[in-house]
Amino acid sequence: MTKHFQDELDALKQKLLTMASHAETSLSNAIKSLVDRNDILAREVIGDDSIIDHFEIEIDEMAIALLALQGPMASDLRLITVAMKISQDLERVGDEATTIARRSLELSQEPQLKPYVDIPRMTHCAMEMLNQGLDAFVNHDPDKARAVIPQDKTVDDINRQLHRELVSYMIERPTTITRCLNLMVISKSIERIADHAKNIAEEVVFLYEGRDIRHTGKTAAVPATTK
Amino acid sequence: MTKHFQDELDALKQKLLTMASHAETSLSNAIKSLVDRNDILAREVIGDDSIIDHFEIEIDEMAIALLALQGPMASDLRLITVAMKISQDLERVGDEATTIARRSLELSQEPQLKPYVDIPRMTHCAMEMLNQGLDAFVNHDPDKARAVIPQDKTVDDINRQLHRELVSYMIERPTTITRCLNLMVISKSIERIADHAKNIAEEVVFLYEGRDIRHTGKTAAVPATTK
Repeated sequence: MTKHFQDELDALKQKLLTMASHAETSLSNAIKSLVDRNDILAREVIGDDSIIDHFEIEIDEMAIALLALQGPMASDLRLITVAMKISQDLERVGDEATTIARRSLELSQEPQLKPYVDIPRMTHCAMEMLNQGLDAFVNHDPDKARAVIPQDKTVDDINRQLHRELVSYMIERPTTITRCLNLMVISKSIERIADHAKNIAEEVVFLYEGRDIRHTGKTAAVPATTK
Repeated sequence: MTKHFQDELDALKQKLLTMASHAETSLSNAIKSLVDRNDILAREVIGDDSIIDHFEIEIDEMAIALLALQGPMASDLRLITVAMKISQDLERVGDEATTIARRSLELSQEPQLKPYVDIPRMTHCAMEMLNQGLDAFVNHDPDKARAVIPQDKTVDDINRQLHRELVSYMIERPTTITRCLNLMVISKSIERIADHAKNIAEEVVFLYEGRDIRHTGKTAAVPATTK
């Protein structure tokens, strides 16, 4: 492998980490805009989404140029294809942060329904998953990446519980319906961010072990007959 | 280019089209299970999701093997990377079909809220978008692919209108809340399928013109101050 090729690979990795840091900032600001009812911050998150989108395009261009340049083998090839996948996940994290910011703008028009407890908790979990997955990427640590995967269940559980709670609210007080719907969308967005973090972790395992572990833990079980 | 390499590329394309046909069948059966209140069909859709998942893994393997084998240039390289992206979109279409089938199982436990008109109409649009995008892929027709993109707005509009209608329903008759929520999720799933069809169309334009047109039509505009 030439020095030039190695430099280009390093630049690709670096670009991906910069993109990740933008996506994480957007998520954290989106939730902050919700909790603090800060419309200025929410609009900043929405405006910054195009920066994250642009990273995705740049990373794809770099990756395709690298594939064309050298015909890289095995682990380098995996690094390049995984970088394209991770950047797509990060782009979606940015989209979800934008969704949260938009809903937060709507919510700040009405009195707050109740103190936000579950949403910051879910966000904390999802953010940890993202961080650990990216750390595993940087430190060539598939075990750390693998440890991210079961954490997705915690976020799913909080989302499900919050959803149930919001349904009860809606039934008891129909005037809260639009607010509850906005909160459901936000909760679902965070749940999806955790899914993206899980995807990233699976991609890191593939990168360093060459094993594709996607869909292996998916419960495709058909619900039992309920009638 | 060797004959063997060309054969492998053709096999990759063929595999992608077979996957697409599975994803389209799942979507169409999921909606049929909703409209006909057919639980058996809904369970079939859920059970078949793992088949679609498996295609994604196989296509990635074929793509990476091709990249390693030959160090392909320009258009072949784009075909391989685009195949990986399209297969990911199709896998998500399968996931959304599963979501629709699950919600359809829940809805069949209660009396039907009203005749389904908008949902089959949205599905028809989304399915057309998918078909046209894949036709454009097969027939090397970037213009046809480009024509798919504006159709996404139609699906977005129907989803938004149905959402508003369901909110009114919930407010007027809180006993319909859980049914309305299930219908909202289904409507959103179809809207996401149309997004995937749009992604596929953008990927086909990139494949045949080498231009990345993602995010170009995205309205990243920050909502005007409302206070």
